[in-house]
Amino acid sequence: MGGDHGPAVTVAAAVSFANREPDSEFILVGLESVIHAELKKNRASNHPRMTVVNATEVITMDDPVEIALRKKKDSSMRVAVNQVKEGLAQVCVSAGNTGALMAVSRYVLKTMQGVDRPAICGLLPNQKNRPTYMLDLGANVDCEPLHLHQFAIMGSALVSAVEGNKSKPTIGLLNVGEEDIKGNDVVKKTAQLLRADHEKGLLNFYGNVEGNDIFKGTTDIIVCDGFVGNVTLKAAEGLGRFFKTTLTSEFKSNPLNLLGAIIARGALKAISGKMNPSNYNGGCLLGLRGLVFKSHGGADKYSYEWAIQRAFDAVKNDVLTRISTSMAELMPIEPAVEAPAVASMQTNEPIAQKTA
Amino acid sequence: MGGDHGPAVTVAAAVSFANREPDSEFILVGLESVIHAELKKNRASNHPRMTVVNATEVITMDDPVEIALRKKKDSSMRVAVNQVKEGLAQVCVSAGNTGALMAVSRYVLKTMQGVDRPAICGLLPNQKNRPTYMLDLGANVDCEPLHLHQFAIMGSALVSAVEGNKSKPTIGLLNVGEEDIKGNDVVKKTAQLLRADHEKGLLNFYGNVEGNDIFKGTTDIIVCDGFVGNVTLKAAEGLGRFFKTTLTSEFKSNPLNLLGAIIARGALKAISGKMNPSNYNGGCLLGLRGLVFKSHGGADKYSYEWAIQRAFDAVKNDVLTRISTSMAELMPIEPAVEAPAVASMQTNEPIAQKTA
Repeated sequence: MGGDHGPAVTVAAAVSFANREPDSEFILVGLESVIHAELKKNRASNHPRMTVVNATEVITMDDPVEIALRKKKDSSMRVAVNQVKEGLAQVCVSAGNTGALMAVSRYVLKTMQGVDRPAICGLLPNQKNRPTYMLDLGANVDCEPLHLHQFAIMGSALVSAVEGNKSKPTIGLLNVGEEDIKGNDVVKKTAQLLRADHEKGLLNFYGNVEGNDIFKGTTDIIVCDGFVGNVTLKAAEGLGRFFKTTLTSEFKSNPLNLLGAIIARGALKAISGKMNPSNYNGGCLLGLRGLVFKSHGGADKYSYEWAIQRAFDAVKNDVLTRISTSMAELMPIEPAVEAPAVASMQTNEPIAQKTA
Repeated sequence: MGGDHGPAVTVAAAVSFANREPDSEFILVGLESVIHAELKKNRASNHPRMTVVNATEVITMDDPVEIALRKKKDSSMRVAVNQVKEGLAQVCVSAGNTGALMAVSRYVLKTMQGVDRPAICGLLPNQKNRPTYMLDLGANVDCEPLHLHQFAIMGSALVSAVEGNKSKPTIGLLNVGEEDIKGNDVVKKTAQLLRADHEKGLLNFYGNVEGNDIFKGTTDIIVCDGFVGNVTLKAAEGLGRFFKTTLTSEFKSNPLNLLGAIIARGALKAISGKMNPSNYNGGCLLGLRGLVFKSHGGADKYSYEWAIQRAFDAVKNDVLTRISTSMAELMPIEPAVEAPAVASMQTNEPIAQKTA
């Protein structure tokens, strides 16, 4: 039900994907009547690999997280994530309210051991013709160094899982300059944590990277807080669209340019393919005990289908198991904090001492 | 002396600009011998509108601000900003260390009344074929709501000064979503301040904008902290370069594409002109009692010349006076804090009471 266009986009994309991918099965969750109407429009009323599950409520794009979590317990989002929890679905895809999706997923699925805050990890194209993995893209607008540190570990685990373990993926920390003295306190402290892990051989920390390094492909992974990540991602999408518009309008500006465009249509198609931000839609909610993918809210059918594709590939590649394994290796072994805490409770110490 | 390439770029760009702009005069500040050698290379040893002023020290790209301010008092940067302070130059252009340039400029020139922190304001292209003014682009990596509020006022003053006062320029606050509930505390509180000014008719606050709005041209001005601004700007530049590389390589990939490119070379030239990030080089240090422009550190000759162009235009348009006038109108009238403080000092109250 989510996103700017709701089932008009999501159902259409699901039908299109199901038709070209015989291994896929869909559970469409939301207002039954609306979904059936969309299925009918897409000539898929009796599609053998489409099930509809009713959910009576919808989380809107401006519902606060509290409403999503506490009031709308029969929302399409909640019911969809529940399908994953209960093992009925292997992955959930949503174009809905990011904050709500993260909160609901976290509540229903729980986080992996050692993860305080899940993050959204997405792909961006780069000049080396392979993706730059970037996280967080918008789940956490305020981050402490420990969160960014965990994002680096999760990103490293994801890329190792997806791209194979030939060598540890390189990690860049997004900053305003390459030099160690640059940036705010959060970034400087994060760099210290990452450097320490690098020296231990746990992570392959490259150092600070700048905005342009995203598209240079300087590192496999770029770590940043969700505010910066979200703004940068949307700026890149906006510039991509601007580029496309300019390309089209200039080539149509006179007959000579149009002729050139027709002759070089192969080149234009290739450029459009490489630069179309829709092809990079679909971020993975990383750090949860289940797979959830977030599509851009403004996605059209074509773009939403890419998010489904990414989710489908993650399941096929057994990304969840692989990440869990990598995470277990990478996560710092927790000092046995819980055990003494329990012990101290048994000794009936006064509360004041426990917090000390 | 600054930037990744030093005088090889800055002197060459100055000579090229001086040759095409007879109204311009240059004072080249730095290591005399190096500058004279570059002038010779550029056949401008006895250029009638070029003076060389010696400065024995150079601030490097990774010098901390303290070194720039306290140790290197004869740095090219410091001496150049002094030229503005003393009225010998109308504007200073530098490709050097951003933090140092801001600190030195602030120390030497002082801030305008009501400005706590100067900001860097730059231009980005948008689909409406006019620039989006964006600030801060990297001077302040940590900002409080009051700083972002001042950036909005300064941006509004600048755009009114440059574009004419037909109507109040629109201001967008960069955020992760349009909705009021989105973003971190700093952004939410800033929005409250801007909304209050909008209601008073002082500013034309549009509301939250997202990364893609930069290139859509949703508002005339976009306000953000220097961390987000710097990363976004550099990401946009990186993506711009990626476009250019892809465009070139695809059109050269086979004879047919190349033929099309030759026929449509007018379109390609126009696209390249619109999308080339070099054409948008040159940010204005806003909020100072003098004009200072910051070029990208990695600028080449062509790109640095754009920064000089921008600085030259600012002087021609008498931007400093205009901003000062607008600022005086827009800045909240300061409550008379200083007067009572002086009075209390005269009564010899104990220090403990003064801080209470």
